[in-house]
Amino acid sequence: MKRVHNFCAGPCTLPVSVLEELAEELPDFGNSGMSLIEMSHRAEAYDAVHHETLGLLRELSEVPDDFSIQLIQGGATLQFAMVPMNLLDDGRRAAYVVGGSWGKKALADGGKVGDAYAAWSGADDGFTRMPAEEELTLEPGTRYLHITSNETIGGIRLPEFYRTDVPMVGDMSSDYLSRPIPWDRFDVVYGGVQKNLGPAGMAVVFVRTSLLESIAETVPAYLSYRTHHDQDSLANTPPMFTIWATNKVLHWMKASGGVAAMQKRAEQRSSKVYRTIDEADGFYRSPVDAACRSHTNIVFRLADEGLEATFISEAEANQFENLKGHRSVGGMRASIYNGLPDESVDALVDFMSDFARRHG
Amino acid sequence: MKRVHNFCAGPCTLPVSVLEELAEELPDFGNSGMSLIEMSHRAEAYDAVHHETLGLLRELSEVPDDFSIQLIQGGATLQFAMVPMNLLDDGRRAAYVVGGSWGKKALADGGKVGDAYAAWSGADDGFTRMPAEEELTLEPGTRYLHITSNETIGGIRLPEFYRTDVPMVGDMSSDYLSRPIPWDRFDVVYGGVQKNLGPAGMAVVFVRTSLLESIAETVPAYLSYRTHHDQDSLANTPPMFTIWATNKVLHWMKASGGVAAMQKRAEQRSSKVYRTIDEADGFYRSPVDAACRSHTNIVFRLADEGLEATFISEAEANQFENLKGHRSVGGMRASIYNGLPDESVDALVDFMSDFARRHG
Repeated sequence: MKRVHNFCAGPCTLPVSVLEELAEELPDFGNSGMSLIEMSHRAEAYDAVHHETLGLLRELSEVPDDFSIQLIQGGATLQFAMVPMNLLDDGRRAAYVVGGSWGKKALADGGKVGDAYAAWSGADDGFTRMPAEEELTLEPGTRYLHITSNETIGGIRLPEFYRTDVPMVGDMSSDYLSRPIPWDRFDVVYGGVQKNLGPAGMAVVFVRTSLLESIAETVPAYLSYRTHHDQDSLANTPPMFTIWATNKVLHWMKASGGVAAMQKRAEQRSSKVYRTIDEADGFYRSPVDAACRSHTNIVFRLADEGLEATFISEAEANQFENLKGHRSVGGMRASIYNGLPDESVDALVDFMSDFARRHG
Repeated sequence: MKRVHNFCAGPCTLPVSVLEELAEELPDFGNSGMSLIEMSHRAEAYDAVHHETLGLLRELSEVPDDFSIQLIQGGATLQFAMVPMNLLDDGRRAAYVVGGSWGKKALADGGKVGDAYAAWSGADDGFTRMPAEEELTLEPGTRYLHITSNETIGGIRLPEFYRTDVPMVGDMSSDYLSRPIPWDRFDVVYGGVQKNLGPAGMAVVFVRTSLLESIAETVPAYLSYRTHHDQDSLANTPPMFTIWATNKVLHWMKASGGVAAMQKRAEQRSSKVYRTIDEADGFYRSPVDAACRSHTNIVFRLADEGLEATFISEAEANQFENLKGHRSVGGMRASIYNGLPDESVDALVDFMSDFARRHG
């Protein structure tokens, strides 16, 4: 089977074994005479996949019992709305760390639903880092501090989770399941699955169960964390294919050593690329503060920006796909999620070194 | 390939050719070296599938240009919230026809978001029919009349769309693309795809574009029809697998004669089953008013309800799956959506006649 080196920022490269299994099992699930995606979501066979997926998420992320795990459609974007709808009681405020485009979007929805403000914003210096805890401005009456643990567009990672008095809410779309989560400091953690966990079509949301009671009765059914909690994410027809594929990725992740292994691998693989950037005698540069360099989205520029188009076209000719930076920032971005094979990373650093030699 | 007769009320049986194509194309899309579900949603290949899907929906449903077609995650359930969030301006009210469980759920969310009331409810007579237009109570200041054109649990169909002065909003999850829609009478039509169009994971929503301007600025991004309209349902990562599979079902539907053919087929196939019910000398009965019998969800009982468990177990032994009625109403239900082969319907009526002969 032909495979290119796919550095897409999301949707992500999936383990090839997952794709092959899905293809094989798709027309007839377990000799049942139907596809899993044609089954009732109340059927025993689907139910087993569904609950196993929730169990694998709990096991791999070491989620304590006082957190509910929910599979909700709409990606992280719908969570931008659901978090304040569920958590902001009358008169409470929400603080947001704006470290890039995603933090900005989360804050915008927070402000539509309730009273939300930026505890810090990196907009003025063009988003190059995350703030230290002492730089945050937390106003009285703040219900939660929202962080984006990794900004995929800027390639910026929050190196250490904060220890503020206010509980955190974390959008961890691009790094959950590849770094441990200090659950005691969070009220909600969420992320779209299409980066580290599976194909697009839902978010995994972890909600502290003690919050469920205080959710306002006026929150509509699908938008309430209580609905999804009370019915194990089966209140309405769930996105069964996405859950099934995610289940397979989680099995693969577990067999590959779990979150600890994924974390180590993300550190090692990203270091390889950053080393290539740093050791090319100024040919490449990283626009991100060294302490905040992402382990999953490596953004880089050429000193000679005029050469960037050549870099992209030569890369494509060599089977490297999706290395172009986000249209809002330009340059290059290599997204190295869990499912990307090591060979793709090795091939990339070889290509980068070779390109620098030839054009430097 | 083994195939059972799957009468599931949703998720639905898919054309076997669609399943086979998906399985074949899943690991490597068009020799690109990656799966379609691993591609960027901005990639040319995915974009083509996405926009072709929107085009096929417009063509098959004969959607006029002044309607926006949107692919939104969360199923019909999220639409129960989005409709009032987008349409109910200050001080306006919303009327709901409550012909069964789904109408009831839609009204509940309407009442959470704004001022909503039942224009009619069939709860008192146990949900056996839809009301005639003259039975509706429409109060002054009503912004829209919400209908559920087919109640899947009760097996009740609205035979004729209303001609009230108030524009309609229609949940048509279980019969769109199998009956024509008089667009001039609707402001919004929506439906989860998992009954007639594809695997679970999104709703198709048709929104009159003239409404988009008046949507309140306070509606969060994912929950605003303006967001999905402005970015052709690509504002965030869409549910790519569900869209891809729906694309294939729409191609199959077009090749099979389009909505006119699907409508005729639904009438003929449901008539076959109702005839079997009516002509069994009282062995079977339909609890639904004759004029409102569903063309897609055929609910029936045995005169001797004690025999129903035997019916279900004999049916299962003969490869008929998902004939059990919804747990809230009991009895039997045969859901006959577009993707179910004619052979399954023929086999069912044969089985029913035979069962009546043997046990009658």
